[in-house]
Amino acid sequence: MIDVYTWATPNGHKVHIMLEECALPYRVIPVDIGSGAQFEQHFLKISPNNKIPAIVDPDGPDGQPMSLFESGAILLYLAGKTGRLLPADVRGKYEVLQWLMFQMGSVGPMLGQAHHFRLYAPEKLPYAIERYTKEAQRLYGVINRRLASSTYLGGKDYSIADIAVFPWLRSWKNQGVELSDYPHLKGWFDEIARRPAVQRGLEVLADQRRPLTTDKAREVLFGQQPGGPRRAGR
Amino acid sequence: MIDVYTWATPNGHKVHIMLEECALPYRVIPVDIGSGAQFEQHFLKISPNNKIPAIVDPDGPDGQPMSLFESGAILLYLAGKTGRLLPADVRGKYEVLQWLMFQMGSVGPMLGQAHHFRLYAPEKLPYAIERYTKEAQRLYGVINRRLASSTYLGGKDYSIADIAVFPWLRSWKNQGVELSDYPHLKGWFDEIARRPAVQRGLEVLADQRRPLTTDKAREVLFGQQPGGPRRAGR
Repeated sequence: MIDVYTWATPNGHKVHIMLEECALPYRVIPVDIGSGAQFEQHFLKISPNNKIPAIVDPDGPDGQPMSLFESGAILLYLAGKTGRLLPADVRGKYEVLQWLMFQMGSVGPMLGQAHHFRLYAPEKLPYAIERYTKEAQRLYGVINRRLASSTYLGGKDYSIADIAVFPWLRSWKNQGVELSDYPHLKGWFDEIARRPAVQRGLEVLADQRRPLTTDKAREVLFGQQPGGPRRAGR
Repeated sequence: MIDVYTWATPNGHKVHIMLEECALPYRVIPVDIGSGAQFEQHFLKISPNNKIPAIVDPDGPDGQPMSLFESGAILLYLAGKTGRLLPADVRGKYEVLQWLMFQMGSVGPMLGQAHHFRLYAPEKLPYAIERYTKEAQRLYGVINRRLASSTYLGGKDYSIADIAVFPWLRSWKNQGVELSDYPHLKGWFDEIARRPAVQRGLEVLADQRRPLTTDKAREVLFGQQPGGPRRAGR
């Protein structure tokens, strides 16, 4: 039984979907990032960057518990553990890895900034809104172009690259994107959304999710309270 | 001889340093991102996200050429090809991978935004500057805390996680950070900066680098011209 420290966010859903796809038993440990639970000391030990998701697998590679943070690393770990959703051949593996890295380095961070400036920032800053909305549209264009000539992001088979990108695109409206402008992407998106394991994964903690309407929640999430030199543990 | 499509940026330097550390022969193909060379059609075929670095290895996994984009994927590929700078044991491998993903998902994108709003954005937006400066300081704090109890980011050995993070921290002044506020980080940084392979890697295209002073260069780099629905290749 893998412990999953998580919340109903795109990065959380990546791991929920992967666990469901691999039929691995898991226990959900909610980390309410709207109330600052990610900054508690016991969570910091598991996740030194104070972010969800993180896992603890009691049956790690050497039979000892393995603790892991960063959704991209967790996807790779679970793929390695089960032999699922990452090609075994070397070429196929790196083709998937480059699209997984594209999600980690661009899709997640930049769509996250689009959410922030379009929805949550206390001031409406036209320059920042335009910057990240354009970047969101550019990224959807990159994905659409890829899916014009490839069934899935990483190649001919569904993989952890698709699992990593999909949850981020569910909020296309909040990113200033019109999904139907990207027909290849939309066909792929709709197909993945119909997968039973994906639907089960998306239900994890869905009832706990709530809009960040309070000032407190905004401050905790975006004020970046802990960390910085003073709290750096020097 | 590996072809490296690159420029003198942190993500480019990751790959230059890795090639030098592994003593792999390579040929540098400059992609001048200040003049928009990354948007040319032939480069798009190699790098569908229009970003440097990308590589073409004529001696790929099956003896055929292998083309690869995303610096994180390239680091993993070169580590796999050479058996260098990524632990062979499963636990050690994933410990490195989580810090590599931390670089890909947080250090690179967020320090990049700090550079943008502090240096390049045509308007000075105090909210955005504060947001990314605080995030930069928080990330330096995370790294410093890790290096208080671990010799290197991924564990006891120098690895691709260190190679991925190091080039991003060279611009600490531009990120609103004071390096000496993070003594564990600073010790690690100074040690890595002394490695001969790192010094050789940082020299790649260093003479081509220039400040983005022209409006043209700014527009090309940050205006996100191509992509978006109209250029999405539908």
